This record gives sequence, C-alpha cells and structure tokens, in this order.
Amino acid sequence: MKDKFALRIRKTQKSFIREILKSAADPSVISFAGGLPNPDFFPVQEIKQACTTILETDGPGVLQYSTTEGYPPLREYIAKRYLSNFGMHIEPEDILITNGSQQGIDLCAKVFVNENDAVLIEEPGYLGAIQALSLYSPRFLTIPLNKDGIDPSCLADICTRERIKLFYAVPTFQNPSGTAYSLEIRRQTAQVLQQYDTIFVEDDPYGEITFRTEPVTPVKKYLGDRSILLGSFSKIVVPSFRLGWICASREFMDKLIIAKQGADLHTNYFSQRIVFELLSNHNIDDHIAKIRNAYKTQRDAMIKSIQNYFPLEIDYTQPDGGMFLWVTLPDGLSSLKLFDQAIRQKVAFVPGTPFFVNGGGENTLRLNFSNSDVDTIDRGMKILGELIKKMLT
Amino acid sequence: MKDKFALRIRKTQKSFIREILKSAADPSVISFAGGLPNPDFFPVQEIKQACTTILETDGPGVLQYSTTEGYPPLREYIAKRYLSNFGMHIEPEDILITNGSQQGIDLCAKVFVNENDAVLIEEPGYLGAIQALSLYSPRFLTIPLNKDGIDPSCLADICTRERIKLFYAVPTFQNPSGTAYSLEIRRQTAQVLQQYDTIFVEDDPYGEITFRTEPVTPVKKYLGDRSILLGSFSKIVVPSFRLGWICASREFMDKLIIAKQGADLHTNYFSQRIVFELLSNHNIDDHIAKIRNAYKTQRDAMIKSIQNYFPLEIDYTQPDGGMFLWVTLPDGLSSLKLFDQAIRQKVAFVPGTPFFVNGGGENTLRLNFSNSDVDTIDRGMKILGELIKKMLT
Repeated sequence: MKDKFALRIRKTQKSFIREILKSAADPSVISFAGGLPNPDFFPVQEIKQACTTILETDGPGVLQYSTTEGYPPLREYIAKRYLSNFGMHIEPEDILITNGSQQGIDLCAKVFVNENDAVLIEEPGYLGAIQALSLYSPRFLTIPLNKDGIDPSCLADICTRERIKLFYAVPTFQNPSGTAYSLEIRRQTAQVLQQYDTIFVEDDPYGEITFRTEPVTPVKKYLGDRSILLGSFSKIVVPSFRLGWICASREFMDKLIIAKQGADLHTNYFSQRIVFELLSNHNIDDHIAKIRNAYKTQRDAMIKSIQNYFPLEIDYTQPDGGMFLWVTLPDGLSSLKLFDQAIRQKVAFVPGTPFFVNGGGENTLRLNFSNSDVDTIDRGMKILGELIKKMLT
Repeated sequence: MKDKFALRIRKTQKSFIREILKSAADPSVISFAGGLPNPDFFPVQEIKQACTTILETDGPGVLQYSTTEGYPPLREYIAKRYLSNFGMHIEPEDILITNGSQQGIDLCAKVFVNENDAVLIEEPGYLGAIQALSLYSPRFLTIPLNKDGIDPSCLADICTRERIKLFYAVPTFQNPSGTAYSLEIRRQTAQVLQQYDTIFVEDDPYGEITFRTEPVTPVKKYLGDRSILLGSFSKIVVPSFRLGWICASREFMDKLIIAKQGADLHTNYFSQRIVFELLSNHNIDDHIAKIRNAYKTQRDAMIKSIQNYFPLEIDYTQPDGGMFLWVTLPDGLSSLKLFDQAIRQKVAFVPGTPFFVNGGGENTLRLNFSNSDVDTIDRGMKILGELIKKMLT
C-alpha cells in the first residue's frame, strides 16, 4: 500500500518540531520552544465588541460565502498601510487574503515550482517554508545567514551558477535566527535579483514587531514586481484567525487567485470582517507599540541571562525585533543532547537541525522570547546555561 | 516571463464560473447561478451568543495558535455524529478539520496524485474538484452519472482497463446534478472498489440536506478504510467560517496532517470554537430540519415551474436533497446561448460545459434552488422557459 501515496509525500516524516512542542505543552515546562505571540496582548474585548457589531449590523452578510480575493476594504487597508509605513505604492488588487502567511508560501510554491526546480532558502531557514516547499519536490539550495543578512555577492554567485526559480527568505527578524538584513544588504539583494529571472518570495510576518525607531522596509520596495511579499495579522492582532496576505503584481496575482480558489475557495470571511472592524475602530499602532515594548523587555532579559549564565564560548544573535534568538554552541556540542537533558529539568527549546534543509546545525538552537515573562526567562535560561557548562567540561 | 510559472498552472484560465457569478451579482438579477445556502437560516443570534461566551470564558485561549488536527471536542462531535446518524464507527483521531471540504480535495490530491496518474471523476463533475485536482496534473477519466448514480459495471470496466489512483465523487445530492446514488449502487460501488487499489474520495457536503425520511448513508460505511470522506459545516451552519473536515483512517491521516501543516498550519481556531459552542447549546437537528423543509419547498417550486413553463423536450433531475437541479436541453441547443439571452432578461444560471472535464455538455445547465424564494423561482423559471421555447422554434 506504500506506493498509494504521491512521490512528493512519501519521504516526509511527522514534523520533528511537532513532537518537540508536544513535550513542551506540559504547563510545568518552561518553554522557549514554541513560536507563540504573548496572549496578554490579544485584544479580547475589542474582538468581542467587533463580533457583536458586525453580527448586529450585517448579520447574515458576514456569514455567507465570499470572494476568493478577500474582503475589499481589508485589502485596501493593507495596501494603504504599505504606503503609510514604507511609502510603497500597492493597489488593493495586489492583495490576496490567505490563511496566514503560511498559505502564501504554499500558493507561491504551487504557482511557480516544478519538480527539481532550484529553490534557494536561507540557512538556517524557516521550517514551515521548508515543509511547504518540500511538497513540490524542488532541489533545495541554501545561502548562509550572517549577522546582518545574506552576502549579496554569494547570492550573485549562486544565481550565476544555477537557474534559481524561487528564492524564499524572511529578511526581517527571521524565524529561526532573529536576523534582519541591513538596509544596504536589502538594496544589494534587490540589485542582484533584478539581473536574474528569480522570483523573490519575501515572508514578512515579523516586520511590525521592531525594536528600532525606524520602520524596516521590505526588499520589495527596491525590487518591485519581482518580489512577492507575504504578510500576516497573526503577530499584531491574533493568530487563531489565520489571516495573512500575499502582495503581488497583477501578472502573478491571476495565477495565485486560481491556486487559492482550488485550495479552499476563500479565507474565513467572518474573521476578515472582525479584523477590519477592529482596525477601523482602534489605533493599531498604539497596540503594536505595546507588543514591541513587551517583547523588547523580554529579549533584553534573555540576552542578559545569556551573558549571566551561558559560557563565553557560545555565540548568539541579538535581534532587533521578532520573537526568536539563535544560539550557536561550540563545535562538537549537540543541541539535541542538550534538549534531552533540559526537558528532564522542564525547560524546552528547538534544536537547530530541522532548520538546515541539507543537513548540519547540530550545535545550534532556537529560543523564543515572546511568550515568557522576564522571571521565567531568567529561571529557564539559568538551567540551560548550567547544562551547557556541564556539557563543556 | 511565461515560463516563470509552474507547468501545472500555465494552462489554467480564470474560472468561467467566477465570471458568470460576477454578472449574477447584480441584485436586480434573478440568480439560479450561485451555490449559496439560504442566509435566512444562518443562526446569527446563536453565533453572537457563542462568540461572547467563548471570549468571556476563554478569552486569549480561543485566539492563540492551535493544533493542526483541529479542536479535539469538535472532532469528537463529528465522529459521534457519524455513529448516531449512520452507525459508523469513527474515532476522533480519524477527523482532520479543514478550510471547508474544498481544502479536503486539495489535500487528498497533494497526498495521493502524481503527475499523469489516472483520476476518475463523475460526468458532470464538481467544478471545484476539477479545479483543485487539475493543479496536480492528473490524467482525468470520467464515469457518466445516471439518475440513480454511476453504473457499477462501468466502474469495474474502467478499473480493470486503467489503474485508477483516485476516484473523486459526490454520491449524495451531487453538485451540479443533484443526483444521489441509490443504496444498491452504494453497496456495489464499494464492492467494485474493494477489488482495486483505488482511493475513493467521497465528498459529502450535502448529505444532511436530505428531503427523505431515512438518512443517506455514505459509501464509506460499506467501503471502510479505502474511502476518504469529506464533510462540511457550510450548508448546515454557515459557509463564511470555511469549516469542513476529512474523515480518514490512521494510515492516510498521518500524511494528510503533514500536508495540512504545510498548507496553512491549522484551520481558523476561533471559528472551530464558535461552532462547537453552538453545537453544544442548540439542537442542530431542529435547525437542519428547517433548512430541509425550506429547500424542499423551493425544489418543489422549481420542478413545478419546469412542468409549467418548459417545453416537454427538456430533461431534468428531481433531487431528493442538496441545492441543485440539472437540466438537459434537446440536442443542438446551446445553454451558453441561452445564458446570453437570459442574462439580458436578468436571469442567471450556470451553463453545463465547465462540469465536463473532457468536453461536452453544451446542452446542459445547472440551476440552484436553495437561495431563491418560491415567487422568485416562478418568475425566473418562466423567463427561462419562454426563452427555451423560442430557441426550439
């Protein structure tokens, strides 16, 4: 019965991270493993009010089937926000509402990737993208992530050597590393890509969660139509609605809409209406400011506890935003072994290997700082630091 | 730039039906074109109450990320309903919550269909399935639908001649035809399929909308694990939540979960919680009974108006449930030409050709009866009848 399955799925295993998250789900575990936003900042009352309002004013209307593209005023809101945040000129017709930005990755893969096409991804890379793209049987190539992004000359080398069909990246506060491409690297990345026939899928779920004073401009601003930009309300409103979007030029959009229609007809329309009602009546920037402040405090606590408790030999990123921090242990130390010991002491994190599409990363790990308070971070990091020190001796 | 796109999507055109529905969206048009449930039966007050309750009792909890499989109590509810409705023994672990049953089709295609695999579909067949399956580049074969279902000996012939990887069907009140397989044909279909290595994807969004007194049992009851059964809350609760499910055995479920996770991590969790809250506090059977009564009255009106206004030469189905009725004009008459004339008189329907995956059906059309009241049905059908009579002379 094994060849019942399509080739694309035969090799896949149940996600390693899912298993990790299961052991981290025990409420007595201090978990730096998940990628959960802090629920203290979910606008519960505002959502309750929005539900009541839309059901009272447009009862059956918000419950019927809707268009594949999404709720027009919500698409217009997103387009306008690109203008006010970054001076980017995006039309509402360039926005397609998706089930989280994860669905954006799947639809781009479906529209662009043939079997054995060369697909480029950062190393370490976002696991959800690796999973989504894998199912279209591409040939994965990787480009290393440094502290301020990829190396554009390395990108140029790869693009010269190989015909890269699609480059998937998270240039801003990446999952898993927390890295953000510098402005200079954004411009150079765009310059390189403009010379080649490569689609740039730029996943940006964390861009609004910045600890800087200046907004972090998407590469699309410099690259134009060749970039497909993915966005999400999961980190700035709530994740359970699964609301994200694809921002793409008309040429790509026609095919993306066809793929979306085949995938699920349209995104949950009730939630689109709730979020638009919420955004119309509340200042989202005030709300985002609160999230930024809290996450910044938590990131500071995590970095301080690394400096306090971890041995000097380890390396770590110092993210200016997002939800994750990336640790590199000295060569030869295994983060998987560290995990086994840590979970016995009720601390969890994600070992780094699943983020390496072609192997490696045994001495790396991802830490989430968005969903633990400062005291919990201190307690958990102390335990991790002591375990790492013990492994080193 | 044309070869930017993956082969699977290059041939696709914007959906014909989407264009039809756009012209039918004008509120002055009598539309038998769409596939919309009647919004008079949307439980607006109950949903408002459910939103308030879940947000007050589990505020942040209903807004966080959730599991790929879906909300466990909702999966348990669905499993229990298979037992109480049909005496089918389904475990909650055999249920995966999806974005409508449409996503179930996409995930099954992703998990089972390789390029050029033979995929069997009814003729006429559900357009959304044709669209979803097409993107996996199968080789489509068709089996004709008769008034009481497919011909099992024809199915046996096809399965002997070709290695059918997957057979997609809507055995109960099919879209577009309204046809339901008889009990005998259900048993025989299961018997035939048991002898071959074919996955049966049994899409059942309309089964609860029956005008019969006896429940209409899914083929899965007779076929067992080889059947993957798709279900939906769109027709019995509301469509905007995009809540459906896949019911499949453990062997298939592991791969379906991997595909679901890659596609969008999980289905909108807030809506899962709303629907479960609603189902826990209200008698869904009373609610479904109201929908059945209303749709039956509307179907009766449509059949009566066919008998009153249409020429004797036309053929039509008399569905015992669901939302659609299928008309066959005399040979040589074009339903597309009829559409052009009808839309000028502000009546819309869907011409039949898009439901024929390998061509044909020029003299067929689909009529929706669930979303028009009795008077509107009478007015619109009279106009259609007169136009058909004129075309005949």
